[in-house]
Amino acid sequence: MKRVAILGSTGSIGTQALEVIQQHADKLKAVVLAAGNNYELLVHQAKTFLPEYVLIHDEHYSKVKEALQNLPVHVLSGKKNLTDIVSLDSIDVVLTALVGFAGLEPTINAIKHKKNIALANKETLVVAGELITQLCEQYQVQLLPVDSEHSAIFQCLTGEPLDTIEKIYLTASGGPFRGKKRQDLQHITPQQALKHPNWSMGAKITIDSATLMNKGLEVIEAKWLFNLSPEQIEVVVHPQSIIHSMVEFTDGSIKAQMGLPDMKLPIQYALSYPDRWQNDFPRFNFFNYPNLTFEVPDTQTFTCLSLAIQAMKEGGTMPCVLNAANEIAVQAFLQHKIGFLQIADYITRAMENIPHVSNPDVHQLLHTDNQTRRQVEQWIES
Amino acid sequence: MKRVAILGSTGSIGTQALEVIQQHADKLKAVVLAAGNNYELLVHQAKTFLPEYVLIHDEHYSKVKEALQNLPVHVLSGKKNLTDIVSLDSIDVVLTALVGFAGLEPTINAIKHKKNIALANKETLVVAGELITQLCEQYQVQLLPVDSEHSAIFQCLTGEPLDTIEKIYLTASGGPFRGKKRQDLQHITPQQALKHPNWSMGAKITIDSATLMNKGLEVIEAKWLFNLSPEQIEVVVHPQSIIHSMVEFTDGSIKAQMGLPDMKLPIQYALSYPDRWQNDFPRFNFFNYPNLTFEVPDTQTFTCLSLAIQAMKEGGTMPCVLNAANEIAVQAFLQHKIGFLQIADYITRAMENIPHVSNPDVHQLLHTDNQTRRQVEQWIES
Repeated sequence: MKRVAILGSTGSIGTQALEVIQQHADKLKAVVLAAGNNYELLVHQAKTFLPEYVLIHDEHYSKVKEALQNLPVHVLSGKKNLTDIVSLDSIDVVLTALVGFAGLEPTINAIKHKKNIALANKETLVVAGELITQLCEQYQVQLLPVDSEHSAIFQCLTGEPLDTIEKIYLTASGGPFRGKKRQDLQHITPQQALKHPNWSMGAKITIDSATLMNKGLEVIEAKWLFNLSPEQIEVVVHPQSIIHSMVEFTDGSIKAQMGLPDMKLPIQYALSYPDRWQNDFPRFNFFNYPNLTFEVPDTQTFTCLSLAIQAMKEGGTMPCVLNAANEIAVQAFLQHKIGFLQIADYITRAMENIPHVSNPDVHQLLHTDNQTRRQVEQWIES
Repeated sequence: MKRVAILGSTGSIGTQALEVIQQHADKLKAVVLAAGNNYELLVHQAKTFLPEYVLIHDEHYSKVKEALQNLPVHVLSGKKNLTDIVSLDSIDVVLTALVGFAGLEPTINAIKHKKNIALANKETLVVAGELITQLCEQYQVQLLPVDSEHSAIFQCLTGEPLDTIEKIYLTASGGPFRGKKRQDLQHITPQQALKHPNWSMGAKITIDSATLMNKGLEVIEAKWLFNLSPEQIEVVVHPQSIIHSMVEFTDGSIKAQMGLPDMKLPIQYALSYPDRWQNDFPRFNFFNYPNLTFEVPDTQTFTCLSLAIQAMKEGGTMPCVLNAANEIAVQAFLQHKIGFLQIADYITRAMENIPHVSNPDVHQLLHTDNQTRRQVEQWIES
């Protein structure tokens, strides 16, 4: 029995992880569920899965506490408890599915307590890739990717000798605006940007898919997960989202992992690894997808991808600035405060203006993150 | 240093294997080269690679012996020597690249002497799959597939837990006559059938590709190599020959192996396994292949594929009859003695008329093979 803590249990990844746990109730048990604002769903999940602990944002604490008063479930709240709870002896693996930068501190604490990490929070590696990978090495902890692209690469690498990666291909659907040019994107509404052609995901990541920032963040994440140089990572637009990503080995052989766009599969693999567990998820059929196509990404239009690659190459606090500026700008776009193309403009401005630190520790990262958010908010409001 | 015996060194696989050995002269050494009729090329190969032994068909023995008289290379001929030579202490791996049924006895002897087998002779498993796989288990010998499709599956299975194959997809280019119907194929000439769109191979296998018998033989081979039931093997027509085959696992995840259609890659992998060796073979570029397409095979027109699947299901000597009848019929087609569509007709007639043996030993297989060849030759000549 693997005992799982889910940080972000009411989000898209969290709810699908609970479906996986339900399907494999003989092998998986949810022992901690942590959520932000969706307390009603958290209460429902707690009643269904009876975890040892649930965590909720302070303002909903009393409602959750009351709703669960007759159940053997401890209710906690507060940032410190979120970071501390992952040290629990009864946890085998921590699924970090919090949106944005909030996953960093709990992830670091989980690694220090030798919990394997099923990583669905890509900002963790984007912002603190060097720190996290060093800690994983030090504490001998395995980072199990949950993103479909990184899970694909992880699956392709299974059983292969170390240091035989020549390059990787990260596939990108191209998002809802593939083929459009800058002038077409000026008056895009959040509603239009939220219509992803293949994947059903949260709002932040769906907007990131529309700008290609999501792929940029994945490039940085891949660099750290698989110890690659920037030149070893290529993005290929593949609109059908069937090939989830690929590895080219030093002998020229390429391995690809494929399937329907269904996050439950990479979530399950992160929890079943190194095994594979039978399930009743829908199966891919080639004859429903007679054409798989590939294109070069249009980085002239979707400049966020180039900005992310630039931030990766510059290193230090630059990916932290990129990520923080992007979070604020996407939020502002969703609130109709800025236009779609302005997301990249604010990120560029932040990358040019926020002071750079070369080898940041976690406090400097937190400081840079805060500083960037406040600065970008100020620019947007002014 | 891995020391390699190449049975069939002057054929398409053999010559490409020698290119691989040349590229990795620090890791591979050719110690035995065996050929049939192309004695001039064998002499040239012997002078370049200086193997311990060369073997040649009886009628060319004296010419080869004379040509190599000043070199430290032993020259042998005769069927018995071909079977015996594989027991040589200095051999680590035997690459069986003889065309047709001739590879069976040397392969069996190599297994009995605990030599790993790089298997490029698909008839070995088609005819004697049960026998060979039992022997491999008994002598703890690894069968390393060289066919691009089976190498693809073998590569996809690396590092995966046993018994997690849900099914495999063998890809087929569809051959030069893909899309044609029976009436279009009545007056096909050998010259037309020898023009394969993607792969450069020997004449027999190129005709087998045109009839889809090649894919049928591969289905049977896959059954034995990967211990599958007939229902677990699906053929998908993929005209670009970029995805070389795929495995679907029990969790619904699919892994594919891809690359340019270049036999040197699977040959090298069979020799480097479990390692991968850097090389300068041309690399695949997605943007040269923006469309990968998939179709259901047309078994109404290409009945050889159905015949092979039927023979696999019936088992016993039936695949042996299929294979022998096919070899004779293809030869007759190449000699303009029969038409393209008659290849399947003669195979069908042989499968209906040659007496069936349920659990054949090697002598019964040899008998059935002989009997089928003589019978089909007689039908063709009469």
